[in-house]
Amino acid sequence: MDHDETIQRLKSIEGHVRGIQKMLADGKYCMDVIGQIQAVQAALSKVSTRILDGHLNSCVIEAVRGADPEARERVLDEITAVFAATNKN
Amino acid sequence: MDHDETIQRLKSIEGHVRGIQKMLADGKYCMDVIGQIQAVQAALSKVSTRILDGHLNSCVIEAVRGADPEARERVLDEITAVFAATNKN
Amino acid sequence: MDHDETIQRLKSIEGHVRGIQKMLADGKYCMDVIGQIQAVQAALSKVSTRILDGHLNSCVIEAVRGADPEARERVLDEITAVFAATNKN
Amino acid sequence: MDHDETIQRLKSIEGHVRGIQKMLADGKYCMDVIGQIQAVQAALSKVSTRILDGHLNSCVIEAVRGADPEARERVLDEITAVFAATNKN
Repeated sequence: MDHDETIQRLKSIEGHVRGIQKMLADGKYCMDVIGQIQAVQAALSKVSTRILDGHLNSCVIEAVRGADPEARERVLDEITAVFAATNKN
Repeated sequence: MDHDETIQRLKSIEGHVRGIQKMLADGKYCMDVIGQIQAVQAALSKVSTRILDGHLNSCVIEAVRGADPEARERVLDEITAVFAATNKN
Repeated sequence: MDHDETIQRLKSIEGHVRGIQKMLADGKYCMDVIGQIQAVQAALSKVSTRILDGHLNSCVIEAVRGADPEARERVLDEITAVFAATNKN
Repeated sequence: MDHDETIQRLKSIEGHVRGIQKMLADGKYCMDVIGQIQAVQAALSKVSTRILDGHLNSCVIEAVRGADPEARERVLDEITAVFAATNKN
């Protein structure tokens, strides 16, 4: 997986979070601040999806094809758990 | 996968949705109605997670071990897509 | 608020949930079933939003303009709570 | 509203995002990285909820009590919109 691109996105998200602090310090309108927080959350979701995609196409394939049934089970349970955690409502 | 149990849960969710209609018809307090809708959404998330879990432990294992690279790619892309769809914010 | 329209939407959601049970009984593809569950969740979200909108434009206005500070506080806290509950991730 | 406390939380979130970049650079396990991203998203949700709470107890009360029906409508529509945006599934 191309970690450089993912790290780059997180750097940009970090800058975005810093910008939101400035919005608050500058007394910007609350609902605009919430809008920017939602934009950061959406950007983080894209990063998660990107990492999951890389994970499925490397570790998951490896574990499913491998000889260790426990490793396979653990890897698949992790996918279920991450889906459950994002899908609470 | 035990579809009977999953269908049973959906039947109970169906009854819950009918109950919410009655709450509205009876003029129940709006925020209580929204609370019940959120409970239905949470119950549906659990059903989705259950189905995904079964899918990972059957079709996904099969496709990843199978000889068809396109089938494998499609199955893994579907997992990424369903994660992205639940993780929008 | 027009409860008739909201109840009508919930009736249609109820039918949708019944259709998903049939998909499972007919052995439809798991990921298509999950897609339909997500569609039901999205439809429920729209119903919640509709109810909240009606609530804001009736009870909330009333409570905020009213003489009882506790009623006002309770109504506003409920809005915060419902937002927090939908915004867990 | 106590912006200092909110800004402090965002500073801590910013550090968390920086830590996730380091996790990736250090080759940490993908699913652990996703877990940390979800923790950041949850922390951002709490910040949003905090800001919304402050907004409801200041601007919203003011607009609802005020003489300008358009300002009131706008403020209430914003609450509905932010709820809809967080409640898409």
